[in-house]
Amino acid sequence: MTSSSKNPEIRTDPVLNRSVIISPARARRPSDFKSKSPANPNSSSNPNPSCPFCIGHEHECAPEIFRIPQNTSDWKIRVIENLYPALSRDPKLLERGETHDWGVKGFGFHDVVIETPVHSVVLSDLSASGVGDVILAYKERILQLSRNEGIKYVQVFKNHGASAGASMSHSHSQIMGLPIVPPSVQGRLNNMKDYFNRTGKCCLCQNQPDEILINESNHFISIVPFAASFPFEIWVIPRDHVSHFHELDNEKAKDLGELLKLMLQKLSQQLNDPPFNFMIHTAPLEVSAPQLPYSHWFLQIVPQLSGIGGFEMGSGCYINPIFPEDAAKVLREVNLLM
Amino acid sequence: MTSSSKNPEIRTDPVLNRSVIISPARARRPSDFKSKSPANPNSSSNPNPSCPFCIGHEHECAPEIFRIPQNTSDWKIRVIENLYPALSRDPKLLERGETHDWGVKGFGFHDVVIETPVHSVVLSDLSASGVGDVILAYKERILQLSRNEGIKYVQVFKNHGASAGASMSHSHSQIMGLPIVPPSVQGRLNNMKDYFNRTGKCCLCQNQPDEILINESNHFISIVPFAASFPFEIWVIPRDHVSHFHELDNEKAKDLGELLKLMLQKLSQQLNDPPFNFMIHTAPLEVSAPQLPYSHWFLQIVPQLSGIGGFEMGSGCYINPIFPEDAAKVLREVNLLM
Repeated sequence: MTSSSKNPEIRTDPVLNRSVIISPARARRPSDFKSKSPANPNSSSNPNPSCPFCIGHEHECAPEIFRIPQNTSDWKIRVIENLYPALSRDPKLLERGETHDWGVKGFGFHDVVIETPVHSVVLSDLSASGVGDVILAYKERILQLSRNEGIKYVQVFKNHGASAGASMSHSHSQIMGLPIVPPSVQGRLNNMKDYFNRTGKCCLCQNQPDEILINESNHFISIVPFAASFPFEIWVIPRDHVSHFHELDNEKAKDLGELLKLMLQKLSQQLNDPPFNFMIHTAPLEVSAPQLPYSHWFLQIVPQLSGIGGFEMGSGCYINPIFPEDAAKVLREVNLLM
Repeated sequence: MTSSSKNPEIRTDPVLNRSVIISPARARRPSDFKSKSPANPNSSSNPNPSCPFCIGHEHECAPEIFRIPQNTSDWKIRVIENLYPALSRDPKLLERGETHDWGVKGFGFHDVVIETPVHSVVLSDLSASGVGDVILAYKERILQLSRNEGIKYVQVFKNHGASAGASMSHSHSQIMGLPIVPPSVQGRLNNMKDYFNRTGKCCLCQNQPDEILINESNHFISIVPFAASFPFEIWVIPRDHVSHFHELDNEKAKDLGELLKLMLQKLSQQLNDPPFNFMIHTAPLEVSAPQLPYSHWFLQIVPQLSGIGGFEMGSGCYINPIFPEDAAKVLREVNLLM
């Protein structure tokens, strides 16, 4: 049965507890999904004389936290403060505590990971171990933030392309250390706990059905989740049950780098270099045990192919015009032009 | 203290249980918020010969459900089926029930409310009673849908402008009748119930602080909520405790029409005709009593001034660059150029 002859379905994701209407009647063929606004149409300028993230412009940036390798001007990755942070790292804000019933002072950290010294390079252009090094930079910064008692949760994310929220075109990701566990994160943990209590199993340790699998590596699998909210949404999931992203070792980081690179290459080729976001969903820093039996970290990649409107904002349901198993088949079968 | 000298704050909304970082350090002055892409730059063509929503083109549309006034070619409002519905009104889907553990068949209704016969007219151009008539059309359609046992929740919403999700420029809203109560809606009800159980009061019956009030009418107030996720987000709240939107009578509909018109005019003038969404948040159709003591319907208006990125998608927190009390002051003081 082809997508266009399928009836719409409503599916609910057990991790996010979010419903999606899968509605191929509104869809194009799976092969017709292309971004109309590629993320980097003018990426050939190298170096860009006005870009503060380029090598040689370090003095135009907010203070550096660390670089890789250390103590060299020939760096590969720099982790710096955000020049326009959403939160303030002034510890006085922490001392002053709550402002009123519904609020706390905005203490926290908002950092930038410059993934490459070269303006025209995007993350998926790096080698697998180069992507792995970026992943290890996330880990290193999370470990630093975890030593600050005021920080309860760390959100790692990447915005690629202006319409995905990137204000700088030079390839970078962001790390925010938050003084609270956000309600949605607590909600995700509660959802996973409910699933565990109901079934006795972690919902991401389950064998995933073959039809939603895209690719596998030694330590990770990539899928289009059964109730994907967005067309061609991808989850990269560690095979082992681990609650915290920042426990991964060098070997697993390189392995993840390889699979993440492959997924980004496949999205770029299949969908015409779409703007995208990726987000690492992990456990709060302070948990009662090293491993929560129900909480399993994962990385979510969302290509930005269509905006959200009033239906999504009002109901919290999304409308996905392609069945996840059809999107997974397309991504499984992409032949990369290398 | 001006916004730019305020420290960031994290606030959590008790209705949506969503946290927001209010971060004016990243902001412009309140007067500097303007849409860079007005919703209707070319709205002067009247009628538009290629628009099926214009009067005289009724035969190009999906079937009509009703019109106001009835039985006349000189209609003011038409409620029609969506030509590309996200859900299927085929009742066979309902009989077949669940497809598997995580899903149900996509039975439901997806309708369009054409708010005016004239292409160049937008909702806020109508008279207060004209806007009230659109609101009464929503009510009438919800009452019809509520007679279908398969429909559990109705989402009314409006997308204004392409970047807010409107695929047609002719002024319209949409109504979706869903076969489930979406998890986010159930979550909102649970949040309001928690607040009620904790305080003995409905969280929207409370007197709102003066500094977040925008305008008032006989039966409604408009505020920028204390933990607004978006800059210049507005909630219009009935003064009386009512769980269901569709209980409003003709007098209240006209009164709401007047306040809604005023809010849309103020947003348009202050923010350069921004794309926007509005959503009616109401109670599920089947509830155990006519009034739930904790559930109070409201209308949310969100101008689309900035997209969302990986931080919002990952953490469920939003970043709002203007303090809600500053946005409320700006909106309170807008002098409409009439």
